[in-house]
Amino acid sequence: MSNFAPRFAEWEARTHDSFARQGAMTHLGATLHEIAPGRCTIALPYRDELSQQHGYFHAGITSAIADSAGGYAALTLFPEKSEVLTVEFKINLIAPAHGEELRATGHVVRNGRTLTICTVEAKVSRDGHWHACALLQQTLMRVDAI
Amino acid sequence: MSNFAPRFAEWEARTHDSFARQGAMTHLGATLHEIAPGRCTIALPYRDELSQQHGYFHAGITSAIADSAGGYAALTLFPEKSEVLTVEFKINLIAPAHGEELRATGHVVRNGRTLTICTVEAKVSRDGHWHACALLQQTLMRVDAI
Amino acid sequence: MSNFAPRFAEWEARTHDSFARQGAMTHLGATLHEIAPGRCTIALPYRDELSQQHGYFHAGITSAIADSAGGYAALTLFPEKSEVLTVEFKINLIAPAHGEELRATGHVVRNGRTLTICTVEAKVSRDGHWHACALLQQTLMRVDAI
Amino acid sequence: MSNFAPRFAEWEARTHDSFARQGAMTHLGATLHEIAPGRCTIALPYRDELSQQHGYFHAGITSAIADSAGGYAALTLFPEKSEVLTVEFKINLIAPAHGEELRATGHVVRNGRTLTICTVEAKVSRDGHWHACALLQQTLMRVDAI
Repeated sequence: MSNFAPRFAEWEARTHDSFARQGAMTHLGATLHEIAPGRCTIALPYRDELSQQHGYFHAGITSAIADSAGGYAALTLFPEKSEVLTVEFKINLIAPAHGEELRATGHVVRNGRTLTICTVEAKVSRDGHWHACALLQQTLMRVDAI
Repeated sequence: MSNFAPRFAEWEARTHDSFARQGAMTHLGATLHEIAPGRCTIALPYRDELSQQHGYFHAGITSAIADSAGGYAALTLFPEKSEVLTVEFKINLIAPAHGEELRATGHVVRNGRTLTICTVEAKVSRDGHWHACALLQQTLMRVDAI
Repeated sequence: MSNFAPRFAEWEARTHDSFARQGAMTHLGATLHEIAPGRCTIALPYRDELSQQHGYFHAGITSAIADSAGGYAALTLFPEKSEVLTVEFKINLIAPAHGEELRATGHVVRNGRTLTICTVEAKVSRDGHWHACALLQQTLMRVDAI
Repeated sequence: MSNFAPRFAEWEARTHDSFARQGAMTHLGATLHEIAPGRCTIALPYRDELSQQHGYFHAGITSAIADSAGGYAALTLFPEKSEVLTVEFKINLIAPAHGEELRATGHVVRNGRTLTICTVEAKVSRDGHWHACALLQQTLMRVDAI
């Protein structure tokens, strides 16, 4: 899961630019916490605007952050002028996302010519510890500009 | 998928109350468009704050709305003092969510004692037509207050 | 989900030929029950060799049949010299597969250039009735011979 | 994923007994290769009876083995008189399962009171190396005898 080499020299700038153009990430208050070839972590501090009915992070918000973390992990490995589309994902919400900050880290498992497979783990900080709260398995498609 | 009878007389009020307490749905601008026993539609007008990098609805936002539509479809059938948790879901993003409004409709497929299974279809309105954009299959858990 | 037109005149013969070459389907005792453009039903009579520990159809066997039903539903719509690969699927086992015969019917939901999305429903006959036992959502890839 | 303690002294014998009662695993030729608390590996040598149309392991067969590996990984942690049911799983077939032997290893990720979440990795041996071929994420239910 770890020995990936980027194929586009500007991979870091491209990832930050793309993230900045996602109105949804800004609106939620998410930031690109860390990127490396084949890996991406997105961070999201808790606010009431992100809650479900018990005051935890909404499952849909966790899904949105986790989906993006996997998508950007994939994008770090794409050649120039390629973009990333989510084909599908499956997420297990393994514990309530109850805490002050949510972090989702995506890893590329397989980087094929057309399809890339990622896993994403989300955790939440509470009482000074990180607690796993979701696990996602995702298929992404590389779309090359003509 | 259609002959479900509610087991709690106040099922409509409970659904509206729970939706109103979800900060995330309000923050996104979503509304509870229609509910019936075993069915729920959530509507979401487009805004730039909901976009991915091409100006379409973000896949994570579509997922959030679709997850909630399935969750509330399930809740309509639960007895008094029960709550709903998403165990997991899988979503296929079958076309770009490009349009003025997104609607996700959840249907209960099986309503078991502990677990409920839903399917959710999301569509987007563009040029006066509705276009299917996502398909979700979901497992929910009924949690009974003690 | 229903108005699909085949793009290869020999689509029926190709489907039957491909099915006949799948050692696994023969070994399980499965037959191609019915095909139509964008749709396929596979039938499997019960035998002890297909059981889990309670004498029902094994979840993995149900998955194998359902996966093939979706794959062949997709193949009916592919052009000449194309083949079908399963990218991924997700299956909910919604009731015990307890009965004399299992049938899985796959439907194409979206037929894209590269990817095709199917849903598959499996049911089991018991006491003269068909009971839904599994629901699958699947992504398939078209691979064109060079 | 690793510090799990069994809660039933006879966990090993129970796992072997249950596996032996699964007609489907015997029929396919699968064996219980290795078990540990929260972990299980199932092995399956290649035969033509397990093939898809290209002579590789059929995706449905890979799924069946992977589903069982996750199920038995969960069962190792269950108390006496509990049984395991697969609620659902999602599998990505990340490379053709082309080789002499298939092995699927399930790991428990979260062991809740009612639901257990596993991940399963499948690999195939070819030319003296093991190649990853599938990745599965699974939800299982503990059913306690009354």
